[in-house]
Amino acid sequence: MSEWITGRNPVFEVLRARRRHIHRLWIAQGVKPQGHLEDILNLARSQQIPVEFVKRSDLDGIDPRNQAVALSTGGYPYSDLETIIAKAQTQSEPVFVLLLDQIQDPQNLGTLLRSAEAFGVHGVIMPPARSASVTPAVVNASSGATEMLLIAQHNIAQAMDRLKEVGGWMIGLEDSPEAQLPDNINLKGGVGLVIGNEGSGLRRLVRDKCDLLMRLPMQGQIDSLNAAVAGSIALYLARQAR
Amino acid sequence: MSEWITGRNPVFEVLRARRRHIHRLWIAQGVKPQGHLEDILNLARSQQIPVEFVKRSDLDGIDPRNQAVALSTGGYPYSDLETIIAKAQTQSEPVFVLLLDQIQDPQNLGTLLRSAEAFGVHGVIMPPARSASVTPAVVNASSGATEMLLIAQHNIAQAMDRLKEVGGWMIGLEDSPEAQLPDNINLKGGVGLVIGNEGSGLRRLVRDKCDLLMRLPMQGQIDSLNAAVAGSIALYLARQAR
Repeated sequence: MSEWITGRNPVFEVLRARRRHIHRLWIAQGVKPQGHLEDILNLARSQQIPVEFVKRSDLDGIDPRNQAVALSTGGYPYSDLETIIAKAQTQSEPVFVLLLDQIQDPQNLGTLLRSAEAFGVHGVIMPPARSASVTPAVVNASSGATEMLLIAQHNIAQAMDRLKEVGGWMIGLEDSPEAQLPDNINLKGGVGLVIGNEGSGLRRLVRDKCDLLMRLPMQGQIDSLNAAVAGSIALYLARQAR
Repeated sequence: MSEWITGRNPVFEVLRARRRHIHRLWIAQGVKPQGHLEDILNLARSQQIPVEFVKRSDLDGIDPRNQAVALSTGGYPYSDLETIIAKAQTQSEPVFVLLLDQIQDPQNLGTLLRSAEAFGVHGVIMPPARSASVTPAVVNASSGATEMLLIAQHNIAQAMDRLKEVGGWMIGLEDSPEAQLPDNINLKGGVGLVIGNEGSGLRRLVRDKCDLLMRLPMQGQIDSLNAAVAGSIALYLARQAR
């Protein structure tokens, strides 16, 4: 499987992470090798990656928002649940994991992964089906944060059971009257933050497996947040409590 | 000026807010008038708005993500700075205003406006030029929150001066070492939260006018958040402190 990663931040992060197979780097002819593009060229050369200077139209054919650079790579290198748990244990920390149950929109998924990386989760769990996967569009929306994250494709309910065994509290994010406000929730220990589908929310089985439900206090007339924003605020709160 | 608002939440909020001129409502032929669509039809009839049942292809020509509904309306009804200040004073509250300096991306702008509405700002200030304005795409990205918000187009630096006169502290969001962490900042009184361009951040003049700069604590390897996420977390923190 081969795919094109475009955009300067994403390409830089893929090269920096050194976790993917890399076939070749395309740079637009005539563009000045300055700033981040210079960093990209230096990384590519130090890793003996073939560099080709191509027409702008070739890059535009891959992605109109290419920022004059494209990297041909193997597919996203998924991790697994046990590796994520082992990372927490190696760092002698209670687990801090984001579980994304059926997020559909690549932009939302990318934004959530970027926040997860910034707030230092040990890893992210996504289901193997009925969810956006880590496509180049998601890598781009995450600004390359995907390449620094451990992401596992795993049945969500089973992952919740396993994370409970290692001391994780499963906290489902839901905007409902039964859900509790963050001030009343202890986020200090092991935490699995569970986020459902943008439209339909948490599935029954996943919701039933949550130890508690959390909602964010709002006070507008519309009273709903973008799913990626709500999840990012919850990640921020969990990070701050640790 | 006339424009098409599409999508069920946005169309519903425009009708509910009753702030725009409305020309007519288009509904896809054959679609069942259930749920939110039923609410839309009832609102349209109670306001004597002409309803036309049209071909799907006519709606797709306006916006492929139309959700079987489109509303022809006048342009966005901007408010002004003094109305926003008066709203805070009428509610006997210290001002709580979001100032967006040159946000470029309609999706980011819409997401920020949705968060601003959910966390109860008195209003939002945007510059009249070099910024995304409240287009139908922004209304859509905000899930219709724009229609419940007071949004003024105003020179940002001048608006900051005026908000200071009525007791607002101008807090610029910036990810720099000089900026302070939220724990060290008193967000309880009047607050103007200032957010700069996604790429270049706060402009010099605007930055100089800030009473203080705030950064969010991060600990990943990429160490940056989506601009709309960072702004939304700052709005959440300001709301919580009030």
